[in-house]
Amino acid sequence: MTNVHALVPDRPVARKRDADATRAAILAAAKVHFARSGYDGAFLRDIAADAGADAALINRYFGGKDGLFAAALKDSIRPDAISQWDRKTFGRDIAKMMANHAHQDNERMHAFQFLLRAATSPATAPLLNEAVQNRFLGPIRAWIGGEQAPARARIVASIFIGLLVERLIRDEPLADNEREAFIERTGTLLQSLVER
Amino acid sequence: MTNVHALVPDRPVARKRDADATRAAILAAAKVHFARSGYDGAFLRDIAADAGADAALINRYFGGKDGLFAAALKDSIRPDAISQWDRKTFGRDIAKMMANHAHQDNERMHAFQFLLRAATSPATAPLLNEAVQNRFLGPIRAWIGGEQAPARARIVASIFIGLLVERLIRDEPLADNEREAFIERTGTLLQSLVER
Repeated sequence: MTNVHALVPDRPVARKRDADATRAAILAAAKVHFARSGYDGAFLRDIAADAGADAALINRYFGGKDGLFAAALKDSIRPDAISQWDRKTFGRDIAKMMANHAHQDNERMHAFQFLLRAATSPATAPLLNEAVQNRFLGPIRAWIGGEQAPARARIVASIFIGLLVERLIRDEPLADNEREAFIERTGTLLQSLVER
Repeated sequence: MTNVHALVPDRPVARKRDADATRAAILAAAKVHFARSGYDGAFLRDIAADAGADAALINRYFGGKDGLFAAALKDSIRPDAISQWDRKTFGRDIAKMMANHAHQDNERMHAFQFLLRAATSPATAPLLNEAVQNRFLGPIRAWIGGEQAPARARIVASIFIGLLVERLIRDEPLADNEREAFIERTGTLLQSLVER
């Protein structure tokens, strides 16, 4: 890899910064390729080329294609959002979000499409399962707490995913009369799963 | 296309039967190719070859790739199952089904993976939207009836899809203690959307 730091003596801090930047560039390229072509159809040499990196670095940083795919999945599920859900207004907050449209062009939507695609292949479903357990179901379980937390968390997670899929297919906001009923009922339903 | 009927004088009934069989073979091959390679990655010549048919017949029977894709989507959503849902036991019936595992190898699961994949591409999402409206949301709306039927149907459809996705990722039955709570809560929740 050629960069400006090759022209000056190596320093550990600069090397670390380079490695982080390269790792991030590989990961970003990997998400695009895996989302577009799936696990089998994406090639490490293309991902490396798009990231401006040597393909050998994929093995060094991620331990190969499986590891890279798993890292791309992890990076597409952000558990920190869950811990910030407001227990008091959770149901209605989510319901309102789902009544709007999906912003097909934004990064979060692309991440969701990538995750959904990973669910449709037997080769990648187990990797997705692990990422979902650790970064989605687990955090919801911890956030929801109380009796029957595993079942309540699983139902919340399922409804959340289903609402995202429905919104993705629909890709337009709900019309006024349906919108109010949808928000009221979905909000109540989700809230009933949070309150112990 | 060569077949035994080419050796005897053409009769309309035999021609119709041949056309139906060829159409079905093209559709079956199309579902496999679209599920595996997506809309852009699937080629009409490969689909025709797998179906043992002339590629020109795809245009004649389906009006091209878009029409073939739409027909494959339609054929993957079977609205007749919905009209047979039992209003009294609906919630618990669905909840029990979702607590089990997904039978990755069966045809209905492949159909669902194909549909999910269609949701992840901007090129195919509008075609999927139309098929879902006509063959899933519409029939649920008719079946559910009563006040706020559009919103209640949309929520039922979303939860149904989310439970299918969660089961697909998980691909194992729920463990005993979580299983009972899951069935009880999911069943009650779904049932509350059916009862007016």
